[in-house]
Amino acid sequence: MKIAGQISIDDIPQNYPLVSRVVNSQYGEKGTRVVEVAGVRFGGERPVVIGGPCAVESHEQTVGLAHAVKRAGADMLRGGAYKPRTSPHDFQGSGLEGLCILKIAREQTGLPIVTEVMDPRLVGEVAQVADMLQVGSRNMHNYTLLAEVGRARKPVLLKRGMSASLCEWLGAAEYIAKQGNLDIVLCERGIRGFPSGEYSRYVLDLNVIPAAKMLTFLPIIVDPSHATGVSAMVEPASRAALEMGSHGLLIEVADFSMGVPKCDGLQAIDATTLARIVEFAHRSEARSQKSGVRRQEPGVRSQESDDGSPKEERPTSGISKVVVGASSNQNP
Amino acid sequence: MKIAGQISIDDIPQNYPLVSRVVNSQYGEKGTRVVEVAGVRFGGERPVVIGGPCAVESHEQTVGLAHAVKRAGADMLRGGAYKPRTSPHDFQGSGLEGLCILKIAREQTGLPIVTEVMDPRLVGEVAQVADMLQVGSRNMHNYTLLAEVGRARKPVLLKRGMSASLCEWLGAAEYIAKQGNLDIVLCERGIRGFPSGEYSRYVLDLNVIPAAKMLTFLPIIVDPSHATGVSAMVEPASRAALEMGSHGLLIEVADFSMGVPKCDGLQAIDATTLARIVEFAHRSEARSQKSGVRRQEPGVRSQESDDGSPKEERPTSGISKVVVGASSNQNP
Amino acid sequence: MKIAGQISIDDIPQNYPLVSRVVNSQYGEKGTRVVEVAGVRFGGERPVVIGGPCAVESHEQTVGLAHAVKRAGADMLRGGAYKPRTSPHDFQGSGLEGLCILKIAREQTGLPIVTEVMDPRLVGEVAQVADMLQVGSRNMHNYTLLAEVGRARKPVLLKRGMSASLCEWLGAAEYIAKQGNLDIVLCERGIRGFPSGEYSRYVLDLNVIPAAKMLTFLPIIVDPSHATGVSAMVEPASRAALEMGSHGLLIEVADFSMGVPKCDGLQAIDATTLARIVEFAHRSEARSQKSGVRRQEPGVRSQESDDGSPKEERPTSGISKVVVGASSNQNP
Amino acid sequence: MKIAGQISIDDIPQNYPLVSRVVNSQYGEKGTRVVEVAGVRFGGERPVVIGGPCAVESHEQTVGLAHAVKRAGADMLRGGAYKPRTSPHDFQGSGLEGLCILKIAREQTGLPIVTEVMDPRLVGEVAQVADMLQVGSRNMHNYTLLAEVGRARKPVLLKRGMSASLCEWLGAAEYIAKQGNLDIVLCERGIRGFPSGEYSRYVLDLNVIPAAKMLTFLPIIVDPSHATGVSAMVEPASRAALEMGSHGLLIEVADFSMGVPKCDGLQAIDATTLARIVEFAHRSEARSQKSGVRRQEPGVRSQESDDGSPKEERPTSGISKVVVGASSNQNP
Repeated sequence: MKIAGQISIDDIPQNYPLVSRVVNSQYGEKGTRVVEVAGVRFGGERPVVIGGPCAVESHEQTVGLAHAVKRAGADMLRGGAYKPRTSPHDFQGSGLEGLCILKIAREQTGLPIVTEVMDPRLVGEVAQVADMLQVGSRNMHNYTLLAEVGRARKPVLLKRGMSASLCEWLGAAEYIAKQGNLDIVLCERGIRGFPSGEYSRYVLDLNVIPAAKMLTFLPIIVDPSHATGVSAMVEPASRAALEMGSHGLLIEVADFSMGVPKCDGLQAIDATTLARIVEFAHRSEARSQKSGVRRQEPGVRSQESDDGSPKEERPTSGISKVVVGASSNQNP
Repeated sequence: MKIAGQISIDDIPQNYPLVSRVVNSQYGEKGTRVVEVAGVRFGGERPVVIGGPCAVESHEQTVGLAHAVKRAGADMLRGGAYKPRTSPHDFQGSGLEGLCILKIAREQTGLPIVTEVMDPRLVGEVAQVADMLQVGSRNMHNYTLLAEVGRARKPVLLKRGMSASLCEWLGAAEYIAKQGNLDIVLCERGIRGFPSGEYSRYVLDLNVIPAAKMLTFLPIIVDPSHATGVSAMVEPASRAALEMGSHGLLIEVADFSMGVPKCDGLQAIDATTLARIVEFAHRSEARSQKSGVRRQEPGVRSQESDDGSPKEERPTSGISKVVVGASSNQNP
Repeated sequence: MKIAGQISIDDIPQNYPLVSRVVNSQYGEKGTRVVEVAGVRFGGERPVVIGGPCAVESHEQTVGLAHAVKRAGADMLRGGAYKPRTSPHDFQGSGLEGLCILKIAREQTGLPIVTEVMDPRLVGEVAQVADMLQVGSRNMHNYTLLAEVGRARKPVLLKRGMSASLCEWLGAAEYIAKQGNLDIVLCERGIRGFPSGEYSRYVLDLNVIPAAKMLTFLPIIVDPSHATGVSAMVEPASRAALEMGSHGLLIEVADFSMGVPKCDGLQAIDATTLARIVEFAHRSEARSQKSGVRRQEPGVRSQESDDGSPKEERPTSGISKVVVGASSNQNP
Repeated sequence: MKIAGQISIDDIPQNYPLVSRVVNSQYGEKGTRVVEVAGVRFGGERPVVIGGPCAVESHEQTVGLAHAVKRAGADMLRGGAYKPRTSPHDFQGSGLEGLCILKIAREQTGLPIVTEVMDPRLVGEVAQVADMLQVGSRNMHNYTLLAEVGRARKPVLLKRGMSASLCEWLGAAEYIAKQGNLDIVLCERGIRGFPSGEYSRYVLDLNVIPAAKMLTFLPIIVDPSHATGVSAMVEPASRAALEMGSHGLLIEVADFSMGVPKCDGLQAIDATTLARIVEFAHRSEARSQKSGVRRQEPGVRSQESDDGSPKEERPTSGISKVVVGASSNQNP
């Protein structure tokens, strides 16, 4: 029985050569490409923690939270100016005004900004403020957007589609890479399964972390907020993700003293909890450097990270060249 | 335990009032809005059959197939000029040239055209050729595209996301409706589940047909080609879909004498099989009219179809008004 | 990346030779083994319809329903004496008393009985009353029970586990077959997926019907009651199943004038609806015989059914012999 | 739309009172019942690590591995004498002989034994050797077996069904509890989802750990071997599970110098890796005791464990009494 449209991870070198560890062999069997965002290094020595509100609601809320996130020791600020909502009648984000608020928050705290872009026509506008562009789960298959984001020459945070196979996810990364941009960080955020909604929002799929690391050199982080949908699960899920080998975390934070957030308040944590998570992330780094002898596991934060990977060596347009290179590197 | 982001079908009237049967009560408990596409009536007396190639590859292939589809008795021609592919290195469709070919195919056969649009910036261009705009499964959550398509004032074929809940699907329809366009036809095309890939491409979810009919008045059709991924399953799946109450079918057809199609050839059927499916669709109409006494089932092709629903009565902007109207109509 | 425990449908001939169409080649590429149950022929000329209560609750309820089922034209009576319930504190069935009631119902109506057995120690007892033993979805992987049921020399209705792959399902059948009993009827009853619970109880997976037919000669029927969980969906789902090629239906029926059934009343239909379904089943037989020329589809009710397959030719113990036979028949 | 058979976690106190934290309130909001197995304490101060072969194949293999497991610092020995296999023609375990080998392994190493029982008729026999009875994933819904195991007065390791909801899992525990045995340890072992088979065997669902802890006082451990199916993922998955709050681990270990195991060798780890996991488990205990101030997380290994829970206070038969008690204890 022949079924249309089947791809397996064995097809990755051929289908997605630019992001394939086998084809693009400069990172070796375990090295991670370090993606640098205004001094923050994804895939580097220590896990990156990103915190911030689900949506930018107001100047006071966002700037206040940015300071709290900074004090908690996190590395970057997240916050949505444009929000994808299931209903068109729900709050859709504050748009341009939200971008301006994020800019102010960065100026005051020094934290680099990651924010989502949904419209290919707004990529330029968002890229003027954002240090890193986020492609959300709902748009992982939006190839038009992926290509536009790839052309923006900004690092990209690529969330996994809620039912995307690993192949499809790497395929989405390849769309960005094809535009000459390999500064891509993958982000697992929970997948849809039969338990979705019974006791958590999605199913946190940590197995995908070591699997992705075997197949690509791109760093991978985890969003425990969406993956659980339950505030009380975010801290243990963060620790679990780091132990599974995640290069970082993307976490929704709220200041509950200012009232309930307009979206997804049930999955937000406070700054005190964020600080504990940051502390854990730094401790796990220390532990990892001290022992550093876990040979059998693919999920270790890598010491072989190609830290100095010069930005000039990015693949440009020529896919044919890469494919040629691939043929000699490909495993039999 | 409170979980973020939960919605249930009970929330539909409030969240998606424009497409809710309860709120937008002119179609009653069972009536279907007839969506007319150049004389073809979705939700009318008889099921609509759409056939055509996966992708427009060449003038010869597409025009040849259009004639075959016409001879088989189908109502409309499908064919992708812009193709979403998992790999950016695969054939991405023939673009503008493909649109021109589709135009010729329509002129020669008289069949109205449905074709996919993926880029919000190309909606106008595609709408000049297409009689009906298709939003693909991968873009069901692409709210930017949905809004743009809604503004194009063309009927829309809205495929279900491969892991979209019914709520999310109706939410996507609401994005289109909010632009003043209720000429939306839903299209089930298989969902992702654990059996995906073992013996079929996706899991054909026919239960969603009667469920959608209870909640909305929009017509709903089925794409048995993607839902099965196996040519030999397309005919029985087509019959099953019609018996479950589908208002029509969207089927990939190939002329295998011209060689293997560039995409998804394993799920294409030939014109002879298509003709049998059309015959079955017409027979089922006859049967439905003769008996017409199935009270217990929600999936009956409706005799109460609001055939004359005047286009002028489309909802415009004022959602608040609709919600007010809703409160007096809502079931307890 | 090597993953433990992977099997695919290509492994079926080697892993499950007794039920494999390729190995056990007497049924050819399309023939169905006719499983006869007290004169009722599964896989024969026309679909078999089984109706009856979810659980045997009382003499009055069950015997009354049996007469109604008979009048509706159905072929067999279903009814659970032993009920698997998610909570041990729920009604667990009426046990031995229930078996006695089923016996009386058969005597009064002449309808053969299918009833579930859950305990390997009770197989003998249940087999004294039942014409066909049902292995429920929750016990599909209960290999101890499967072996015991296989030894009982009664036809078996083997429901698919709620998340069983097709391979696992045929593996369960092989456990029965290994005891020398090939009188097995498969029963699809809905699978678990992300939509389970949103608008239906399970996801009705009709794709598995043509797939199973390609791989095995065993007849396959559908339980639309559990697969939908919604009374109003049972009739359209029944018609859809038959069009997809199902050899029959297993349907829960209630007499609502006697009050709400103790279990699963929301998925039961009344006898009038059952009669319409029976009528449809008989009509589809007539239609199938008249045309009978659908070459491309695997789901056709087969005219090639090996009607006269003599019971004496059942495989007995010797698996080695069958495997030897297999090697010469196997497709390359 | 009413759907049959729906239960949610809000129904747990009423449906499964014996294992409900709300009803059986002696463990408070966070306390864990300590289940003691020959001195090993599940839910106590430190995580329990169980290691051993998938199947007992020979005296040499099992006893050798038992010594290695002991040297690695693990607390208990696992090993299947009776193996549920998808094909009846595969190695089904060594049965009674296997039990004898396990007994010898315990005598030589002092490690308590956990082993699976599949047949209700063999519970007594297995219970003579096993210190803890395992109910496997395939038999989680086998209520006949659950009741028999409950009567055996041995601690039970209850694996989650591969597509069991949390409600169904606690329902299975309730079947055991109803026999007067609350010495139940839950074991998450991966669930079936769309990624099953692409890069891991199952989807490791760690979200269920904090969720289960909120609803029941029963300890919960994780089987990272089946949940990943990939040897190289077992160590990171073990660490992740412990950080998510797992009370222990059940791990398949092999001595690859003795050849490939007869089943599931691809998911086995060697004793050196096991030793690192044990070391991590002990370290995490130390860390947990030092800080011990994580208020927001449900997944913390509990200091409030009711260590001295007297065995005499086991619930006996009277469910009605418990339910009455429940009404006054239930949270609003």
